[in-house]
Formats: sequence, structure tokens, C-alpha cells
Amino acid sequence: MGQWTSTVGAAQLARQLGSRQGPFRDGAAGGRRVPAYRSLADSVRLLVLEGHVPVAARLPAERELAAALAVSRTTVAAAYEALRGEGFLESRRGAGSWTAVPAGSPLPTRALHPLPPEAAGTMIDLGCAALPAPEPWLSRAFRAALDELPPYAHTHGDYPAGLPVLRQALADRYTARGVPTMPEQIMVTTGAMGAVAAICRLFAGRGERIAVEAPSYANVLQLMREAGARLVPVAMADGLAGWDLPAWRQVLRDAAPRMAYAIADFHNPTGALADEGQPRQLVEAARAAGTVLVVDETMADLVLDEGVEMPPPACAFDPAGGTVVTIGSASKAFWAGLRMGWVRAAPDVIRSLVAARAYADLGSPVLEQLAVTWLLGGEGWAAAADVRRDQARSNRDALVAAVRRHLPDWEFAVPHGGLTLWARTGGLSGSRIAEAGERLGVRVPSGPRFGVDGAFEGFVRLPFTVGGAVADTAAARLAAAARLVESGSPAGVDTPRTFVA
Amino acid sequence: MGQWTSTVGAAQLARQLGSRQGPFRDGAAGGRRVPAYRSLADSVRLLVLEGHVPVAARLPAERELAAALAVSRTTVAAAYEALRGEGFLESRRGAGSWTAVPAGSPLPTRALHPLPPEAAGTMIDLGCAALPAPEPWLSRAFRAALDELPPYAHTHGDYPAGLPVLRQALADRYTARGVPTMPEQIMVTTGAMGAVAAICRLFAGRGERIAVEAPSYANVLQLMREAGARLVPVAMADGLAGWDLPAWRQVLRDAAPRMAYAIADFHNPTGALADEGQPRQLVEAARAAGTVLVVDETMADLVLDEGVEMPPPACAFDPAGGTVVTIGSASKAFWAGLRMGWVRAAPDVIRSLVAARAYADLGSPVLEQLAVTWLLGGEGWAAAADVRRDQARSNRDALVAAVRRHLPDWEFAVPHGGLTLWARTGGLSGSRIAEAGERLGVRVPSGPRFGVDGAFEGFVRLPFTVGGAVADTAAARLAAAARLVESGSPAGVDTPRTFVA
Repeated sequence: MGQWTSTVGAAQLARQLGSRQGPFRDGAAGGRRVPAYRSLADSVRLLVLEGHVPVAARLPAERELAAALAVSRTTVAAAYEALRGEGFLESRRGAGSWTAVPAGSPLPTRALHPLPPEAAGTMIDLGCAALPAPEPWLSRAFRAALDELPPYAHTHGDYPAGLPVLRQALADRYTARGVPTMPEQIMVTTGAMGAVAAICRLFAGRGERIAVEAPSYANVLQLMREAGARLVPVAMADGLAGWDLPAWRQVLRDAAPRMAYAIADFHNPTGALADEGQPRQLVEAARAAGTVLVVDETMADLVLDEGVEMPPPACAFDPAGGTVVTIGSASKAFWAGLRMGWVRAAPDVIRSLVAARAYADLGSPVLEQLAVTWLLGGEGWAAAADVRRDQARSNRDALVAAVRRHLPDWEFAVPHGGLTLWARTGGLSGSRIAEAGERLGVRVPSGPRFGVDGAFEGFVRLPFTVGGAVADTAAARLAAAARLVESGSPAGVDTPRTFVA
Repeated sequence: MGQWTSTVGAAQLARQLGSRQGPFRDGAAGGRRVPAYRSLADSVRLLVLEGHVPVAARLPAERELAAALAVSRTTVAAAYEALRGEGFLESRRGAGSWTAVPAGSPLPTRALHPLPPEAAGTMIDLGCAALPAPEPWLSRAFRAALDELPPYAHTHGDYPAGLPVLRQALADRYTARGVPTMPEQIMVTTGAMGAVAAICRLFAGRGERIAVEAPSYANVLQLMREAGARLVPVAMADGLAGWDLPAWRQVLRDAAPRMAYAIADFHNPTGALADEGQPRQLVEAARAAGTVLVVDETMADLVLDEGVEMPPPACAFDPAGGTVVTIGSASKAFWAGLRMGWVRAAPDVIRSLVAARAYADLGSPVLEQLAVTWLLGGEGWAAAADVRRDQARSNRDALVAAVRRHLPDWEFAVPHGGLTLWARTGGLSGSRIAEAGERLGVRVPSGPRFGVDGAFEGFVRLPFTVGGAVADTAAARLAAAARLVESGSPAGVDTPRTFVA
């Protein structure tokens, strides 16, 4: 960035650091000696990565921060030096030091431990937030699609923008939601991930900044990292209150990212829901900053409780699609086994996305597109969503009860929709719980997968994918994993048992 | 590369330049003044891009080449300087000048001209080498797949490596072809393009060299360019004789590419077929060079004539899959509307490809996988391939007759299989013919799409996708387009009417 655009005072930073001490102690963590400067550097890094201290914010001078924290100036100087070495701080003589984020480096893809024979077949997999198909609607949709197939079987089957009937059906759906839309504004993709990949190729080249919620959807963050983007985290508001608009305005104004990626409805992983006014405000801030705002509506149909007020879609405040690019998907609302997603944007953006598709996946399968067309054209989509909501609600309630029973010190807010519970793991390392869980028959993704470069070590994500006795067993195994981590049993990786959160 | 690894003498280069003069004349081309140095630089560039002069070959000293060509030394010096500026030549004082290739820059994705009203609906699209579905096998396969769906509908539908039954069926198919294969060596992908994209992500990072046939499959070349690869062209042998093994050995030895991409069977676009001994020789050369050899078998089932001797699969000479990565697809042999492809490689390569998939398209649709499993498990695949071959053969014969009738000076070798005819357009610019064709109701991809950075301007690719009267109309429109280009009618882009080929 080359310069700071806002300032964090010494007292303010000391307060933010102090409020996060938790089990963090200078001198020792997880049974190992940790120098004070290292603890301080880690704490500052996490404040940046979780979006609590914005990127390009000038930090206090070493002497001031040392006084505010009652530590030696040497400790602060060494912490700043460590942060500079890791790309989280930039300095220039006379201008001071300001926060930064390094270019994304992909997470190492670690092979999962092979299961011991006694666990094989009994692993409860909470790794994937997707549910079984809402039958009988899957079979019905495919049977109807087969009836529609013959005329398409006479073509080469290659529709890079999607079948015209499906583009029309999706456009009609936006129009019915109050956002007039033409088929030329729609492209069918291979799931929401195919949509994000295509949008990143178009808007966010290597080294380009993308603002993302902290936390956000793990696979999208990794895709962006692999594309070489610089991820600029923006903290979510507390609890389930949706976006922190002042934080977003600051990041959009100061970091001027090329693109921003946000989930308005039942955010993954936190389950947060934007309030009625937020979409308009975020769109206005993005427009003012010249930032393309990519809004992922994958979870929008998954309202689980009565009386929930859904926010208006962000594209309602940018119907022409010059600022807002909307992503939808059948993977969560209907079934992941379809691999069906779509993009709504301005016609020229859609044309560019379609042109680039010849060099990616070429197109989406015809029969799946006919199945989704049939679902959208009749009662199928709504009826399937009812089945899906019933499954998810019952699983959520079972999971919440089971976690409260077996892990009473884990903290979370129960979301009113979506498919995920974001649980604070009582001061233990989420990565080590995930690792111990793998050995004890429960697979769960740890918090850092949902954060930028190591944030959210104190969390795991639990999906609403199992219910009843299985949810109870899963929570019991997680509790056993937590005990294992707490007791200091040796782990396969060198992660401290406790952490700053 | 930093240094040369072979040498081209002045007499040899002059001979190669001389054999390519064709309609090329110093002083004027396409009605415009072209300086002699520019013509010489373009000719050398095309020799490199079409693989006739290898990369990292030392060119003769300016004085020697000037003498051999009977031009001034100033002309040669200016040509070399132009080539250096474009990244096709590197020089160091005392070491001379050697050929190079610039890092790939994506072709501009040019929007197609909107069709005039009288042409709308009458455009003959020869842009895509894919045929209608081989019914009744498509409908039968989907009906059978629907019967198998219920147990899968109870899962989340997310299978990043592919359904176990399909991995097994594909492995069995390789085993039946004489290459023992385990399901762990198979990954199901979103078409062959999904396979190439995943393999490039794994093996060929930015700036990495990939050896490719010249010409090769347009979409794959563009995908590699977008990934930032340096494409090193290797000329195909003359006619339909398959690979030029000495050229391949030289490139693999001298350029040491990280990866090579080759099509053994009914090459796209030329239709060439490797002979019996070539796969083994290419695998041995790749192994010796430490190059990952990616072999695309998309066209392997499309034998159109009797008595054609198919080469053994390249993976037969590397059954463990340490050197050879094989790509297969149902898009050409069955139907592009399925979007089904696969990779065969060593189990650890497959594991890495699968792990990275979470950040790409996540997986392939379940029903399509069940349909392909059913086709492979019974008579379906072979019977559908018979239908497909009958269509393609009859289209090929109609196309060949029509082109000979309407365009007697176009030259081509009639391939014994595959889906494409690679036609030399009688000295006219393929790009301008394509552009004129667009206005006259026939869409055809020009040669440069299949080459590295502007090679093959003198070609178009014609697919075996229309037959009978439609093939005749298509050829008649192409002939009209050729006349338009020859008569010098104004074109929308600044491409010379004639060119060096």
C-alpha cells in the first residue's frame, strides 16, 4: 500500500489487545516458552487477520505502545520487527509503521490421517456442510428433465452461458423477487465455486486486493489465495448481527480493493444475517469505492425459524449489475450432487465470463440444467426447500442440544438459518481438536480454514448435517477430543494447545 | 533459458526460410508496405512458433545470415532486434543469439460480430467439434442412472475424486486395454478441460515451460496461457504421421519442460495418429527429461476407417503413472452435454489433484457419473461409439467432398479418425476467412487459435459436425468468404490478406 490511511492509538490498541488475553500469558503457552515479543506480535497479527485492526492503519510508536502495555520498548520493537518480516507491517522512517497483509500463500493441503481399522466406517464426517437430496424432488426433477431431453440430444450439448430456458427461469426468479432481470444477465456455472472462480479470473488478477469477511467460506478463501489475491479481512459484527458497516466503509475507502466477497444471508460459517438496511449501505460503499461487490446468496433459501426478516437482495440496489455481482447455487438449497450454480451481473460482465469459460470447464451438464429449470418453473423448488429446511432445523436443534450437553464451555450463537454453527472452543486450539477428532471418529474443520492466514484458531465449524443420536455421538467424540488436547497428549503437528483468542 | 543448446546454420535457416516464401514478398503484403526486416522477423518467428526451429537454438551471426539470404546486414540486424523486443530471441555478447518464447499472453477474447437479421438462425456453426448425442444411448444411460440414484440421494452428493463405482469402471477399462489400473489411480473430472486445468494447477505454475504440439487443441493452449505458462511448440510430423520424435527429443532435452501435453490418437486439429512405436519412444524421452507427459485420449474411440492400426496407450509404458498422466473424456466419444472426463495417474498424483479440487469445482454431478458407469459396464459405451462413428464418418465424407468441390485449392490430409479436418487455405489468411465467414453464415475457427502466438495463419479447422446438404452449403459459404478476402474487401481487423506459410 505504501502508506497508512488511518490511525490506531496506543490506548485503543492496548485495550483491544487486553480484551483478547483470555488464556494468553506472556512467557508460556501450551507448555512451551513463548517470548513476550512473540505473543505480542501474534496478538497484533490476529487483530489484523480477524479484521479488528484495519489494513493500512498506522500503529502507535514503539515507546507509546510499550507504555500503554507496561512492557519494555525492546519487546514492542522486536514484535514490530517480527511483523515486518511476516508482511503484516510496513514502515518508513518519518512515516511510522502501518498494518499490511502479505500476498496470499495457499494453505498446505495436508493429507488426512488414515483411519485406524476400528474407526473405518464409523467416522462421523462434519467436514462438508451439505445435506442429502430432498427426495422425492430430486428423482421427480430428473424424470421431468429426461422428458425434456430429446430436443437437446440433437445438439452438441455445449452451452457455455447455460441453457436459454434455465437462464430465463433464473431471470424470472430475480424479477419475482423485485429485481427486474433479463436472461442476458444470467450465466449458469458449475456450482457457486465455478462462479467464484470465473469472477476471480475476470476481476482479480495476481496481487489484486479482495476484501473478505473474517471469517468467510473456507473454499472460496483458498481459491482466492491460489489465484494470488491479497485478502483484506473485514471483521463481522458481533454475534449474528451481520456486517460491520463502519469497518466495511473504512476498508473499501482505504484499501480500495478491486473486488469484495460477502455472504448476506446466513453467512458461512457464522450463520449471521444482514439486517434490512445493510445491503443498500454496503452496495453504496462499494459503488463509491469502485469495488465490484460479489454477493453469495447460496444460503438465502435456508430460513429455519419463523418470523425471520430477510434482508432485501443486494442486487436490488444495483439492478443493472454494474457494481453488484450475485452468485446463487442449488448445492445448499437443493443438492450438492447437482453441481449447479449461477451468476447475475450486467450483460457485458456475463459476456466476458462466458467468453473466458471456453478455457475453463466449457459448460454445465444439460440434464442438471433441465432439472433445475423444472424445479424453478413449478412448485418443486419451494417444496424441496421445505424438505431441506425441515432436515436442517431438526439437525441444528439436535446439534445445539448435544454440544451444550457435552461441551458446556463452548460458546456460539444459534443462527436462524443456513447450515453452520460457528463454535468458540473454550480456549483450546481448533486445529488440535480437529486433529484429535480425526483419531476419535469425528471429522470437523478447524477455524483457521475460514480465516486469512491463521486467524480463528479458537473455533471449529459444525454443520447441520447429522441429527438425533449421531449428533450426540459427534458431540461426545468432540468432547473426548477436547479432553485429549487439554491433557496435552502428543499431537502430530506443532500447534500450541492454547492460543490467543 | 539463458543459453543456447543447439545451433542452426545460416544455409539451413536460409533453406527453411526459402521453402516458406509462398505468397510472401519483401516490400508488400496484403496491399501494405512491409519492410524487409519485418518480413524476415515474422518468418523466423513462425519457424519457432510452428516448432520448425527449436527454442534455445543459436541462430547464425548476422553477417552469415545476410550473406546466405543475399540481403543487407542491416536488415538481419533489424530483424534480430525486433525478435529480441518480442521475446523470441535472446542474445549475450560473445555467446550469440538464440531462439526463445515469451511468457504466454492470453489471446484477446474478441466478441463475435452480431449477426445481421437475415443470417440469424441460418448460421452454420463449425466452431465446436462436438456431435449430437448418440441416441438412444443417452436416454437409456440416464434412465439406468435414475434407477441407481436412490442410495446416492441419501448422501451429501459431494465426491471430489468421483463415485467409487465409476473410478472402478474406468480402472477396469484401462486394465482391459492391458494397463493394470486401480481405482486409486483414477479421478473423475468436469470434462477433459477440468482435467487439464487441475493438472496445470498441480504441475505448471506461472512461468513454467510446457511443451505442446504445434498445432494443438485451442482451448487447452488458451487455458495454459491464462495460467501463465511458457508454451514451447514442437512441430507435428508431416501429413498424418503423428509425432516428430527427433523434434520431441530435442525439445525435452534442451528446454527441459516441466510438463508436455500431447494427443496421441486422431490429434486435434490435424487428425494425425501416432504409429505403433511412437508412444513408447515419447514416454522414454519424457522420463529421461524428468517431464510429466500428459496424454489426451479424448479422441481415441473415434476410429472412422477399417483396418486402422491404433497405437498402444502411452500409459502402457509407464503403468505406475509416475511420468505419464492420461486424460480421457466422454465429451467427444459420447456427448459434450455430459461434461464428464477423467485422469489416470499415480495414486499420489491423484490424491494431490483431488485435494486441490476443493478450491476449484468441488466435484462432478452424481447422475452423469452413474450414466457413464452404466455405459462402461455393459454394451452401451461400445454401441454408442458405433453410432457416433457412423455420424462422424458420414459427416467427414460429405465435408471432404464439399470442400474439394467448392475450394479445390485448399489442401488437407483426410484423417482416419477423430472429428477434425485441418485445411490449408490456399495462401489466404485463415483469420480473415473466419471473419468473412461470420458475415456470410458460416462460423469457423481460424488456424492461429490452435497455435502458439499467431502461428498457422494459413489454416482453418473444419469439424465433422454437419453432413449432406449442410456440409455443402458450409463449404459454398467458405468459398464465398475466401473470394471476399481475395478480392480485398475491407475487413474489420487489421490482418494482412496473405501471410507467411
